[in-house]
Amino acid sequence: MRSPPTHRGQSAPFVWEGGEVRAYKEQDGTFRSVTRQELTGEEHGQGTSLRYFEVGPGGHTTLERHEHTHVVVAIRGSGSALVVDRVLPLAPHDIVFVPSWGWHQFRAARDEPLGFLCAVVLDRDRPVLPRAEDLAVLRRDPVIAAFIRV
Amino acid sequence: MRSPPTHRGQSAPFVWEGGEVRAYKEQDGTFRSVTRQELTGEEHGQGTSLRYFEVGPGGHTTLERHEHTHVVVAIRGSGSALVVDRVLPLAPHDIVFVPSWGWHQFRAARDEPLGFLCAVVLDRDRPVLPRAEDLAVLRRDPVIAAFIRV
Repeated sequence: MRSPPTHRGQSAPFVWEGGEVRAYKEQDGTFRSVTRQELTGEEHGQGTSLRYFEVGPGGHTTLERHEHTHVVVAIRGSGSALVVDRVLPLAPHDIVFVPSWGWHQFRAARDEPLGFLCAVVLDRDRPVLPRAEDLAVLRRDPVIAAFIRV
Repeated sequence: MRSPPTHRGQSAPFVWEGGEVRAYKEQDGTFRSVTRQELTGEEHGQGTSLRYFEVGPGGHTTLERHEHTHVVVAIRGSGSALVVDRVLPLAPHDIVFVPSWGWHQFRAARDEPLGFLCAVVLDRDRPVLPRAEDLAVLRRDPVIAAFIRV
């Protein structure tokens, strides 16, 4: 395990030194305009990884779920999130908790990015996408039906 | 384990709903003007707790060290931190990593608070304070000598 630096400043706002701004995940058509940066990992000794995701104006993350949980803190711009069965507005420093197997999707406002910190455990399962029957259940709620992007 | 809410908004900037703004720790003369809020804990399933600490203008946390690590993200105001053997300036979204047994102390600017998120593992040891010989070693560096408050 390499010894991590004690400090990561920013080379530009929301761009941390000593890392890379990466694509959110492999392009698969389920998301739009999302980048990620790994901020902490195994070498920090907490069994977790802290990442920063930024969704561009009008963009969205993948609608998905998994066994592991997310602890999310919004830190830039504005947007909203589907968490389980509710669509929540998000402003800087609002906290979202995605429980085990809860459906979730993050969307930026039309004219602003949405940037958020997201903590996960290192040893975690892969996300699963909604099947047609999952989407049918989610769309029973008109607010969720209008919100989700697949 | 109670089921946590999926969302914690703010009743005022940097005051999260569904919790309390508490004293940093029992008053012992080692810190000045610090509050804490517990943001996540055992019920979030990551084996960690995320806390928000706010140091008032001119205030400071306790100079201490321990086996467990800290992952810190500054989110409000400005200040600086001793981490191991360096004094680092802190601006919003700068990240500080306090390694195992590293001395650390956070100070706010004279005219601004310093607010930061701090992640720790739930199962952790208690901090220890510097002995006279530890202080003597720290004070060999004039920057650290001028920085620390005990």
